[in-house]
Amino acid sequence: MLILREAFYGTERFDDFAERVGISEPVAATRLRELVDEGLLVREPYREPGQRTRMAYRLTEKGAELLPVLAALMQWGDRWLQPDGAPVQLRHADCGKVVQAELRCAAGHPAPLAELDLTVGPGATVPATQDG
Amino acid sequence: MLILREAFYGTERFDDFAERVGISEPVAATRLRELVDEGLLVREPYREPGQRTRMAYRLTEKGAELLPVLAALMQWGDRWLQPDGAPVQLRHADCGKVVQAELRCAAGHPAPLAELDLTVGPGATVPATQDG
Repeated sequence: MLILREAFYGTERFDDFAERVGISEPVAATRLRELVDEGLLVREPYREPGQRTRMAYRLTEKGAELLPVLAALMQWGDRWLQPDGAPVQLRHADCGKVVQAELRCAAGHPAPLAELDLTVGPGATVPATQDG
Repeated sequence: MLILREAFYGTERFDDFAERVGISEPVAATRLRELVDEGLLVREPYREPGQRTRMAYRLTEKGAELLPVLAALMQWGDRWLQPDGAPVQLRHADCGKVVQAELRCAAGHPAPLAELDLTVGPGATVPATQDG
């Protein structure tokens, strides 16, 4: 999760992942390989002038779509585990306002817990016995 | 996480947690105790007529605020790990539309990954060397 967070922050190079997450290179290599195997990151060679070829890691679409999970977890942690508030904040580049993960229905209404129903979805394996 | 999901679904009684999550009673007891210790659930005695006193578990505010994390994780799993689509769906009780976790800024704009900036927050421990 910390490696994925770094990937969302824009980290791509192997050395930078190990250094910024604060883990050893062997551990970073193992974690990055797991994330590649899960299809969350893709491994691409790159080469800077005069250097040997190295590996970069970029988020796949599957990986990038974890952003709402990560953002929601960050905001929860900022509220409940950080007495001084958020150490970093996501902001909307266009307007500069703080970005939050929130629940909304397809009609655009904010949907707090008290207004949620749990219903059977298209992938249910057990026949529905009731609506909702 | 599966126990928390059950709590969001409305499960409160010890026996129901063990049965619905599909874990043994000792495992359920341990997991529920951990969630109580973390302040995510609160343990309350209840008594049905003619029965001995039993324990119920309800989400605290700290626990309930994990809902966007859980909803975001569910929708990611539905899209990437469930070939037949979502087995269950959250819907807005008022209008019946499907509810999703999404990123929006405080001005109400949808905020996709490409439009996000990472900025120093109020709880940062290292002095900011630049804006944004």
